[in-house]
Amino acid sequence: MQEDNSIGIVAPQIAHFDTPLALKCGKVLPQFDLVFETYGTLNASRSNAVLICHALSGNHHVAGKYSENDKYPGWWDNLIGPGKPLDTNQFFVIGLNNLGGCHGSTGPKSMRPDSNKPWGADFPIVTVEDWVNSQARLLDYLGITKLAAVVGGSLGGMQALEWTITYPDRVDHALVIASAPNLTAQNMAFNEVARQAIITDPEFYGGNYYEHQAVPRRGLRIARMLGHITYLSDDVMGEKFGRKLRDQIKYSFDVEFEMESYLRYQGDKFAGEFDANTYIRMTRALDYYDPALRYGGDLTQALSGTKAKFLVLSFTSDWRFSPARSREIVKALLDNERNVSYAEITAAHGHDAFLMPDQHYHAILRNYISNITTGDDYAK
Amino acid sequence: MQEDNSIGIVAPQIAHFDTPLALKCGKVLPQFDLVFETYGTLNASRSNAVLICHALSGNHHVAGKYSENDKYPGWWDNLIGPGKPLDTNQFFVIGLNNLGGCHGSTGPKSMRPDSNKPWGADFPIVTVEDWVNSQARLLDYLGITKLAAVVGGSLGGMQALEWTITYPDRVDHALVIASAPNLTAQNMAFNEVARQAIITDPEFYGGNYYEHQAVPRRGLRIARMLGHITYLSDDVMGEKFGRKLRDQIKYSFDVEFEMESYLRYQGDKFAGEFDANTYIRMTRALDYYDPALRYGGDLTQALSGTKAKFLVLSFTSDWRFSPARSREIVKALLDNERNVSYAEITAAHGHDAFLMPDQHYHAILRNYISNITTGDDYAK
Repeated sequence: MQEDNSIGIVAPQIAHFDTPLALKCGKVLPQFDLVFETYGTLNASRSNAVLICHALSGNHHVAGKYSENDKYPGWWDNLIGPGKPLDTNQFFVIGLNNLGGCHGSTGPKSMRPDSNKPWGADFPIVTVEDWVNSQARLLDYLGITKLAAVVGGSLGGMQALEWTITYPDRVDHALVIASAPNLTAQNMAFNEVARQAIITDPEFYGGNYYEHQAVPRRGLRIARMLGHITYLSDDVMGEKFGRKLRDQIKYSFDVEFEMESYLRYQGDKFAGEFDANTYIRMTRALDYYDPALRYGGDLTQALSGTKAKFLVLSFTSDWRFSPARSREIVKALLDNERNVSYAEITAAHGHDAFLMPDQHYHAILRNYISNITTGDDYAK
Repeated sequence: MQEDNSIGIVAPQIAHFDTPLALKCGKVLPQFDLVFETYGTLNASRSNAVLICHALSGNHHVAGKYSENDKYPGWWDNLIGPGKPLDTNQFFVIGLNNLGGCHGSTGPKSMRPDSNKPWGADFPIVTVEDWVNSQARLLDYLGITKLAAVVGGSLGGMQALEWTITYPDRVDHALVIASAPNLTAQNMAFNEVARQAIITDPEFYGGNYYEHQAVPRRGLRIARMLGHITYLSDDVMGEKFGRKLRDQIKYSFDVEFEMESYLRYQGDKFAGEFDANTYIRMTRALDYYDPALRYGGDLTQALSGTKAKFLVLSFTSDWRFSPARSREIVKALLDNERNVSYAEITAAHGHDAFLMPDQHYHAILRNYISNITTGDDYAK
């Protein structure tokens, strides 16, 4: 059954951009690559494109598999495919790896165009606004003037929101899921601890660890373990692990409780795969995002130029991006008399809920997306 | 005004114990020292003693100063002194540094009695039960048969609770503040991340860093930064720091937001003072404490042998030891028809609230403590 509506085998593509990109930090990226994947078919009027923006550790591999026996489909495969809530029979879906990433787009571990060394510490800090600008370049490259929808959860939701601010004429619908108009001090504090764990790892070498054939694994592992605590709710950690012992108590610092085993496994796995320079940049992009800042803290003003229709979703047990934060976005949109639907979904899984195939959640998405009209629909 | 009711200049004392102490982990400590302070006067019937149990990073210096110009009085000085809620005109108050500590009681950085090396990694993991047993030895040393009260917040509250279980005939009142009958999975997860930051610090040397003239500062710093996030509520972090920038955004990994400066300062300070081996043991004691475990998870049964009267207090914004956890203790005590008073105090400061001189909180403490009768009261 699951197999029936899979998008099947997919392959990444690379788009190269030669026109320099001015970044918010003041630096200019002379050229860059974006790695992306697409699912479904772009219609004749090029009006059925949906852009998926990824979160902290996501990438361009959003749906489908790389081979028949690939056990790990894309990270939002439960949402995207033929007959799924985001139906690839109707939509042309685009996933990309953000600039500064470590999965194929230009980032800190990429070679500098002007030398035979990787960027390392010199790779600029990129922001949500920079990502949206680079994503607009990708749309130009694909010949897409306007998105039927932009969709993102968490940090991805911030990008979806920013699309409606920077390119109001290029997006019909924005689906902003488990997100916030900026981070709380507590959220930024967790980011800071994660970054400090990485930066103070002796194998970090000020961000130039590539040249030292080193990897700041210890720091990245701590950062990821900490992340996992904040992605889950206290309740779901309780249900999943509780105080379950692995064995008899040994009075040691080895794994005693099941939860410790889970955290160490997640930390080790991530530290072997992800790039530390990317991680610290992604958390900085989260910290800096604050569209209301340009308007003296007034989010309503920040969203006054938007033209998109919105679906805003939050999850009751999400303490990292709590429903209250989503409601701030909804309020600012309503103040502007924008067309906005909002649902606060009862879910136990905390922030991670946005990635789960919860029935109620997916029904809401299916229903909302099925009402998105694309140019060719009118011709039917 | 503040000065008027200070206990004034105090000095620590050392008690040496030669009778071996059997620990829960199965090991035996052949001899040990406990450093302690006392405030007020023990009455003729030795019935006015109050024991203060400290939390994760606390010590024996609970109240008073070490010199006239000492800027840092004991950690609970706002509670204890002449005319204060815990009035030293009436009570003889004892503070000690727990076994395994790093402030003068025998711990990992103490010299082994059988060699000229510090204990280091070989110092056993001590538990709440072990602490209570060692505290009972201290009472014997002081000639105190029964405590008028045992008082503790957080991990200290667990010790107060354990006193009523292990020594039901030696404690009249237990004040269990901002505590829990065991840690949640989420709490244990934070402890595990903190420990892993320390243990994987290359300067940790498996716990034997003393011999290498090294200190795992980086790990201890990360552990403390993380701790500080969980001691404060999201709201109070928001109020205190919010998204306040230190200066113009520099697009860097240096301090950008005020909150980062606070966390780094706290982390650096702690890493220069506290012993890493003590820290990881204190968190393990927190993890292991679970009196209901011996009774198949039934807290009511675990508390069925208690005889003390209880004051249980929690704080609305404490997400580390939430009011719900205190109510579990209260319920189990009521199931046993014990005499228990409970208050859930509206406070913004999160877990840290138990150390703050909140008016309502202190009024409750003053009122409860003023009703504690000591032997000599009857003679008045």
